Amino acid sequence: MTALVVIVLCGALSIIYAIWATSSVLKADAGNPRMQEIAAAVREGAQAYLRRQYTTIGMVGVVIFALLAYFLGVLVAVGFAIGAILSGAAGFIGMNVSVRANVRTAQAATKSLAGGLELAFKAGAITGMLVAGLALLGVTIYFAYLTHGAGYAANSRTVVDAMVALGFGASLISIFARLGGGIFTKGADVGGDLVGKVEAGIPEDDPRNPATIADNVGDNVGDCAGMAADLFETYAVTAVATMVLAAIFFATSPLLVNMMTLPLAIGGICIITSIIGTFFVKLGASESIMGALYKGLIATGILSLLGVGGVIYWLIGFGPLAGVSYTGLELFACGVAGLVVTGLIIWITEYYTGTDYRPVKSIAQASVTGHGTNVIQGLAISMESTAMPAIVIIAGILVTYSLAGLFGIAIATTTMLALAGMVVALDAFGPVTDNAGGIAEMAGLPKEVRKSTDALDAVGNTTKAVTKGYAIGSAGLGALVLFAAYNQDLKFFIGDAANHAYFQGVNPDFSLNNPYVVVGLLFGGLLPYLFGAMGMTAVGRAAGAIVEEVRRQFREKPGIMRGTDKPDYGKAVDLLTKAAIKEMIIPSLLPVLSPIVVYFLIYALAGGGAAGKSAAFSAVGAMLLGVIVTGLFVAISMTSGGGAWDNAKKYIEDGHHGGKGSDAHKAAVTGDTVGDPYKDTAGPAVNPMIKITNIVALLLLAVLAH
Amino acid sequence: MTALVVIVLCGALSIIYAIWATSSVLKADAGNPRMQEIAAAVREGAQAYLRRQYTTIGMVGVVIFALLAYFLGVLVAVGFAIGAILSGAAGFIGMNVSVRANVRTAQAATKSLAGGLELAFKAGAITGMLVAGLALLGVTIYFAYLTHGAGYAANSRTVVDAMVALGFGASLISIFARLGGGIFTKGADVGGDLVGKVEAGIPEDDPRNPATIADNVGDNVGDCAGMAADLFETYAVTAVATMVLAAIFFATSPLLVNMMTLPLAIGGICIITSIIGTFFVKLGASESIMGALYKGLIATGILSLLGVGGVIYWLIGFGPLAGVSYTGLELFACGVAGLVVTGLIIWITEYYTGTDYRPVKSIAQASVTGHGTNVIQGLAISMESTAMPAIVIIAGILVTYSLAGLFGIAIATTTMLALAGMVVALDAFGPVTDNAGGIAEMAGLPKEVRKSTDALDAVGNTTKAVTKGYAIGSAGLGALVLFAAYNQDLKFFIGDAANHAYFQGVNPDFSLNNPYVVVGLLFGGLLPYLFGAMGMTAVGRAAGAIVEEVRRQFREKPGIMRGTDKPDYGKAVDLLTKAAIKEMIIPSLLPVLSPIVVYFLIYALAGGGAAGKSAAFSAVGAMLLGVIVTGLFVAISMTSGGGAWDNAKKYIEDGHHGGKGSDAHKAAVTGDTVGDPYKDTAGPAVNPMIKITNIVALLLLAVLAH
Repeated sequence: MTALVVIVLCGALSIIYAIWATSSVLKADAGNPRMQEIAAAVREGAQAYLRRQYTTIGMVGVVIFALLAYFLGVLVAVGFAIGAILSGAAGFIGMNVSVRANVRTAQAATKSLAGGLELAFKAGAITGMLVAGLALLGVTIYFAYLTHGAGYAANSRTVVDAMVALGFGASLISIFARLGGGIFTKGADVGGDLVGKVEAGIPEDDPRNPATIADNVGDNVGDCAGMAADLFETYAVTAVATMVLAAIFFATSPLLVNMMTLPLAIGGICIITSIIGTFFVKLGASESIMGALYKGLIATGILSLLGVGGVIYWLIGFGPLAGVSYTGLELFACGVAGLVVTGLIIWITEYYTGTDYRPVKSIAQASVTGHGTNVIQGLAISMESTAMPAIVIIAGILVTYSLAGLFGIAIATTTMLALAGMVVALDAFGPVTDNAGGIAEMAGLPKEVRKSTDALDAVGNTTKAVTKGYAIGSAGLGALVLFAAYNQDLKFFIGDAANHAYFQGVNPDFSLNNPYVVVGLLFGGLLPYLFGAMGMTAVGRAAGAIVEEVRRQFREKPGIMRGTDKPDYGKAVDLLTKAAIKEMIIPSLLPVLSPIVVYFLIYALAGGGAAGKSAAFSAVGAMLLGVIVTGLFVAISMTSGGGAWDNAKKYIEDGHHGGKGSDAHKAAVTGDTVGDPYKDTAGPAVNPMIKITNIVALLLLAVLAH
Repeated sequence: MTALVVIVLCGALSIIYAIWATSSVLKADAGNPRMQEIAAAVREGAQAYLRRQYTTIGMVGVVIFALLAYFLGVLVAVGFAIGAILSGAAGFIGMNVSVRANVRTAQAATKSLAGGLELAFKAGAITGMLVAGLALLGVTIYFAYLTHGAGYAANSRTVVDAMVALGFGASLISIFARLGGGIFTKGADVGGDLVGKVEAGIPEDDPRNPATIADNVGDNVGDCAGMAADLFETYAVTAVATMVLAAIFFATSPLLVNMMTLPLAIGGICIITSIIGTFFVKLGASESIMGALYKGLIATGILSLLGVGGVIYWLIGFGPLAGVSYTGLELFACGVAGLVVTGLIIWITEYYTGTDYRPVKSIAQASVTGHGTNVIQGLAISMESTAMPAIVIIAGILVTYSLAGLFGIAIATTTMLALAGMVVALDAFGPVTDNAGGIAEMAGLPKEVRKSTDALDAVGNTTKAVTKGYAIGSAGLGALVLFAAYNQDLKFFIGDAANHAYFQGVNPDFSLNNPYVVVGLLFGGLLPYLFGAMGMTAVGRAAGAIVEEVRRQFREKPGIMRGTDKPDYGKAVDLLTKAAIKEMIIPSLLPVLSPIVVYFLIYALAGGGAAGKSAAFSAVGAMLLGVIVTGLFVAISMTSGGGAWDNAKKYIEDGHHGGKGSDAHKAAVTGDTVGDPYKDTAGPAVNPMIKITNIVALLLLAVLAH
């Protein structure tokens, strides 16, 4: 219980940090009236989006809450609600800070680059700390309530199911926010450009275009709120999966409670190290923005090394552990491996998306010979960029498994994600600076301001790709953990078939010799492809809807173009929100329904009965790995490739290969457009998709057991 | 022995058909002197390519022959040589017919579309029948020699190893031909356009541009010879894998020899049905080219249904089979399933790449709004196009496994590939008509001729995609067969550890719980991505080399542009060949070395000894499935997507969305350029890559056993 109290205090610290940082951001100068007017339009749009999104998710959530309460009991349903509400809250608060910090960052950048960076980073850090803090608080407090308040055993089915449901709640918000936000932002981006620049002949970021504000809103709802929900669920699901494994591996050990607490404690200490790390982010004499961010990250990493060691020593000691063949020190080494994997993935992503290295330069070079060669080289880089992260993940699995088996991999993944606060902070400053640049442009601020915000934005492209690579990388490293949670749960029910009649005679075979396993692998492998195709197509359709709406406003209010009438930003945003929410329903259903459909289909095809159940459980298990095997590559190739395309355009705009307006620049703009839905819609949504597939499979087991 | 003689006679029939069809093609009118001059230039270039390619492959082949002879004995090495030489011969002869049929097709098209189709299809059918016939003859005669001439037992290690080595020979030629040919043809295409159209300002297909001839050569070396080698190895490897399985499953059964003969007999009868089918390809009153091709295909399919039934009845009967739980009739049903899978994959590919359906039309529509939206929609379609084929393959695995287990899947895959003669015939007419169109344009033939060849060419784009989908689809269906061949071989050596000391104490675990299996899946999954990236990049570099060469010729021989001097086609082709061969070495090494590197790396990391061997064998086995799980999706998305992009351009050129020269057309040209290396270089080479990985793993076992 002491440990849980300390962990809750760590979580509370993140809230205190967020309150302090928010008041500090709000105290900053909000710029001149023109800037505030534009920022208000973005804020108005963002609020319109949130209203619609939460209304829709609320309806879906109520249905699922009722279903869970009926099938698995109220405590499990409450877990679902906690996960969903806290995930939504992290995104909601983060976005509300973000839409206030943008104009203040623009104002601060009029004075210095360092000032702009400081403000934008502080705004991002609020989202970061809330993501980690709220996820940790939700899991810890509910776990404490169930085990101490309600008196359930730590490894009882109710506790395990409630924790899994908490992960499900977070995942569901996450796929809505990621996919809906991604369709929204890229629909606005592509559609706004088509109707504004091409048809009406007004420049980008012109406030007369109702879609331009939607574009800025999109940066916040996609890159800030969507990303926050994604990382919240990645954090929560990983912590929960590790706890489930601990509950099973140490079921009869005196260490049970401490082992289940360990992932939470690692999360707690890393919140403190992340908060300390944020104070190391300071622009040095070299004016290197990436360097400033690295200082904070490295400080957090080194402190976390010590902190994780301390936590492990405190909870379980470094010596041999009862009932298992590995020591506490070996578990610590696994934590270190998780930190190393994080560092390497960040470094590799920077290599593939930064303007200083071969990949981005090669795309810029290929742009000289035209649109086609730009896209060919971009696709080549996007595929190539998957190799090194995959090898790092493979090495991580091999090393941590050899140290401490499956639980070692779980601890490594948990430690990797414990840094989420800091990693999200590095990412969430991107949309703030992106918006700041737009506001500076629209408000006619001096060119140097735009130069500062552009420099911040280019780094933001890389850190955005970094976060996505980090999230999907943790899914790759955690693949076995998620699968093991399923497999061990299944084993538990089969072993306890006396109380769970459904599992009598069930004997799944996860060997690659089993055709149902191969079928599951192929079906799982298909999901990211189909999902990606749907996401890409949805962006096209949402862009079409925004084109129609903007045309209507221009037609009905001719004063907009003359500057005598104000466009209805809220209407455009609301329409785009409706389109985005509509477009995301079928793709989101894909991972939710797939495990269920595959289970019952294979069950029927394999002739029903115990043999049918065995075949179906095998296929569903294999599907969980299949979805990761292709999902890892689809997601990394899309997010890194998209970032590289974006920065290749920026590299040319910096004056290479003829600069802005040259033929090479036009080709690079094409690549950037292609990269948009790649990196901001389809690619990042693959991570929550993988998690949902896994979580639904776990819930399916729980429902069948009832 | 009777059966083997009959099979050899069937194979011989394909040779007789090829001789008859060749003489019939050569008898056709070869057109006017201008046409013959152009055709001669293409032929000259093709011969220059073959000289260089066979010189290089010959050197590699001699080294491998020596290694195999040293490690596994001369008989095994001879198997390798047979596979390599016959695969090369099928491509060599097919291409030589193709470069003579192109000009005659152009001439025939001056009279009628039906005449053009008949000639081009007959030329393609020669390649088709030689692919199936030579592969069947090679496997059958060498098997007959080893079992009857040299007196080895049908399931002795020497016979099994020699058959596997025969598949390896075919695979090695195949990856060289597919990748080298693909880099060559797309390097010429992209490079020739850059230097000719952009720099020199001369139109496409202008004979003054040395690269234009190389482009036509490329159609033959990539789409004809490369494709022939690919299908040869797919056919040979599948037949060999099925024989290996039969050797193991029926080791102690009186049916052993007949079961090992069965895949060859199915191949034999289907050669006859394919030859008959070719005579059904006739243009009807509706002038539908695809309809004419379908007539031939459907005739072959129905006759094959009867033929396969007859062969199974003749060899093993329809009743219960000694030692297994399934009947001959059930094996026949598996063969039928193989035919159904073939039909469905062809139909789905036509849907995704034909100009009459939603996918291609949606890409054309997206071209209206620019380069970016064309590429986004094309990528969305390319990803979507993987779903239905994957589901068909999954259904095929489920159905055939439930009928007759693993051997049922093997028989289905064998039957699927037994139609290779007909399917290749449908494909190989494509480059002939493509070349015919180029010759018609260059020789200034009337516009109607070009219209006829263009109509044939558009269908050729679809049938090209069909063949690639069919080849990779058979790999998906056969995934378990290839894995089972590895697994059963491994089991054999472990069971016979008394004679194979290396395998003492080895106990591989192919369960998904085993981290080495997950590592193997991820590593295998990485290979198609890295391989694809290398292929795409190689095309870019080869295009650069051709740009340099063409510039040099223009500089040193100013008479070329004035029409007073002849460009050195052979030099350009030779240089491009050198560049292509150089570029393909590292990607080709990837699948050859990966199983070996993964084996020894995991062996060392897992601590060596029997435990290390077990871990390493598990990882390599999982790698074989991992490479298929992602390879299937990478290959289908690339080949179908590329075909769809190409035909979207053709659809616009037919007068939609503004027609030739419109902005939509420019955007569609970009999509076509992107699709080029997708569909003709990286995508199709994934199939031989998968096969090589599998075959090398089998050879690794054989070498370790020695």
